[in-house]
Amino acid sequence: MADQYAVPAEPALPSDVPALRWDEPPEGPVIVLLDQRRLPAEEVELVCTDVPALVEAIRSLAVRGAPLLGIAGAYGLALAAVRGFDVDDAAETLAHARPTAVNLGYGVRRALRAYHAAAKGGADSERAAAAALAEARALHREDAEASARMAGHGLALLEELLPGGGYRVLTHCNTGALVSGGEGTALAVVAAAHRAGQLRRLWVDETRPLLQGARLTAYEAARAGMAYTLLTDNAAGSLFAAGEVDAVLIGADRITADGSVANKVGSYPLAVLARYHHVPFIVVAPGTTVDLGTAEGADIEVEQRPGHEVTEFAAVPPAGTGGEVGTGVPVAPLGTQAYNPAFDVTPPELVTAIVTENGVVSPVTRQGLAELCARARTGLGSVPG
Amino acid sequence: MADQYAVPAEPALPSDVPALRWDEPPEGPVIVLLDQRRLPAEEVELVCTDVPALVEAIRSLAVRGAPLLGIAGAYGLALAAVRGFDVDDAAETLAHARPTAVNLGYGVRRALRAYHAAAKGGADSERAAAAALAEARALHREDAEASARMAGHGLALLEELLPGGGYRVLTHCNTGALVSGGEGTALAVVAAAHRAGQLRRLWVDETRPLLQGARLTAYEAARAGMAYTLLTDNAAGSLFAAGEVDAVLIGADRITADGSVANKVGSYPLAVLARYHHVPFIVVAPGTTVDLGTAEGADIEVEQRPGHEVTEFAAVPPAGTGGEVGTGVPVAPLGTQAYNPAFDVTPPELVTAIVTENGVVSPVTRQGLAELCARARTGLGSVPG
Repeated sequence: MADQYAVPAEPALPSDVPALRWDEPPEGPVIVLLDQRRLPAEEVELVCTDVPALVEAIRSLAVRGAPLLGIAGAYGLALAAVRGFDVDDAAETLAHARPTAVNLGYGVRRALRAYHAAAKGGADSERAAAAALAEARALHREDAEASARMAGHGLALLEELLPGGGYRVLTHCNTGALVSGGEGTALAVVAAAHRAGQLRRLWVDETRPLLQGARLTAYEAARAGMAYTLLTDNAAGSLFAAGEVDAVLIGADRITADGSVANKVGSYPLAVLARYHHVPFIVVAPGTTVDLGTAEGADIEVEQRPGHEVTEFAAVPPAGTGGEVGTGVPVAPLGTQAYNPAFDVTPPELVTAIVTENGVVSPVTRQGLAELCARARTGLGSVPG
Repeated sequence: MADQYAVPAEPALPSDVPALRWDEPPEGPVIVLLDQRRLPAEEVELVCTDVPALVEAIRSLAVRGAPLLGIAGAYGLALAAVRGFDVDDAAETLAHARPTAVNLGYGVRRALRAYHAAAKGGADSERAAAAALAEARALHREDAEASARMAGHGLALLEELLPGGGYRVLTHCNTGALVSGGEGTALAVVAAAHRAGQLRRLWVDETRPLLQGARLTAYEAARAGMAYTLLTDNAAGSLFAAGEVDAVLIGADRITADGSVANKVGSYPLAVLARYHHVPFIVVAPGTTVDLGTAEGADIEVEQRPGHEVTEFAAVPPAGTGGEVGTGVPVAPLGTQAYNPAFDVTPPELVTAIVTENGVVSPVTRQGLAELCARARTGLGSVPG
């Protein structure tokens, strides 16, 4: 792909490499992503000079995670505007890059509205583009602030539910700094517990098929100095049975009005196991993930991903190849058909609590969620309507 | 390893390659295994000329599966006897190659008893060795017969539980011809349903970390012409939630007196999901898997396997390298610690039925299981005591 190119990450310290940043080199503005497909083997930044390149990065999961997708969507719209492309076309393409994450469309719409508002107010296209970029930057900043507030609310909830401290937390997929302008969602709560000296063990589900737990969460946990242990998703049941899990903390890609939670496939089985073992199952997500316009879980379109993610082991794409994923090693007979949903949906009755930057909903009810969103809109929180 | 060597499987048709066979080339007797680590990529036979080579093949999972381990143990003892090694030493080494599977020790003890009985009866070491080999062959034959009877009982049970026919069966790990002298255990039932035109879909859990589902069950299902679909273990929850699973059929590595079932890690989470969704959870295993000498599930020693099975993707060992597993590709940060139990334990209250060659126990109770074993011993079945 001509419009994406890979460069070794510059900062000496890995923790200095942000998951996404806007840059303005002499050749023109770009969006620079930490290519998450290459972690933990190498830290390579992927430079996107236009919207198709960014869409490809989103689809191939070089950039991923609900909050970060929102930020990427907003910057992507700004990139199209600054480079003089049709912003409405760009918005359409970006918003549909992946169907399940609600944040992506939210970020795109915010930047688009800022652009049109400026244009309507008499701004020329350059100033309207600047307005879109300012909105993307505002969303980025807000997301970092939301992370910090989710961490605070989540830690307080853990203290309330588990007064003994010394938490053994199980998590799934990756919900840390790599998905966020800040420290993330569920992993931000874990990080807060770690800093408070209250994290006894982080159990990290490897999260098949794409191994975001093994590749990304273990990478973040190691860098943060947490006591963490990796396991196959299969082995979580044994930990529950042995009484080794005090709480499950996960993120969300979409939360519907009834409190159903779409999240990485494998979340729902954890919710069932948690219920069976009387372990709290806690969802941590920014208010932007709550989609009151979708009535219930059954209405969520779940993205079906290609079968080769299951039938082949995908090698890390070699550096300098423009981010193309290398040819996979087959692990199943040729011609094997695979069922590969990216997400599953956990019904509200299995969710102990939903933690957002605006507070905690527990028990999870349609009314509780609506009230939280209303509070946020009336200025008591920061979720834009 | 000097005593194991790999040769391309000779028969032209893959289905002709048995999982294990005794052979007597001019150089002396050997045990020939189909190297299951190389499937489905290639069919290579592994020739074991002594007990240490066989133990290594067992530990590295070149040969695996509860019933087949029993057969391998018996032939291994016979191999030591025929080649003039100390049979008691060989028995000790073989029986402890893997701790959880009860069948391994059972097969070893049967061949050892046959050897000592012949010796006590005045046989010289050559004739005693022949007695051990005859006993191994008897066990092999009995296992094939048990497979066929399990298939019959299991199919009858499915017909009773699911009178509508057209079963959508979810299975985990590999329980077919590759683990057995016959068609296997749970997969033998599936094969019977397939032949009866009643298998609508076989859902195949990939079964991390070693992917026995993707590599082996998919391979067997494809060869048998079944309608099968592969999925990550994570995705099973979505199938249950969508009402796409009519029954779960799995094997067992040890069943304790109370009806607790030790089986491949990931079985227990399936049992919890099946219960939550009111789907029958059926265990199919030969009577030799029932271990009345172990009171309950908590007494089972669960084998912990090396962390690199989780932290690295193991490439298939290159042919002709003596069966050594190739260097893995790291999928987690260096130094990552992994929790990697090979098995988990499902309590009897989550098991709908246990199917053996001697009949079905349902509901699963200590008494029901004891009665089945007693019936088998008094000649109404074929399980040796």
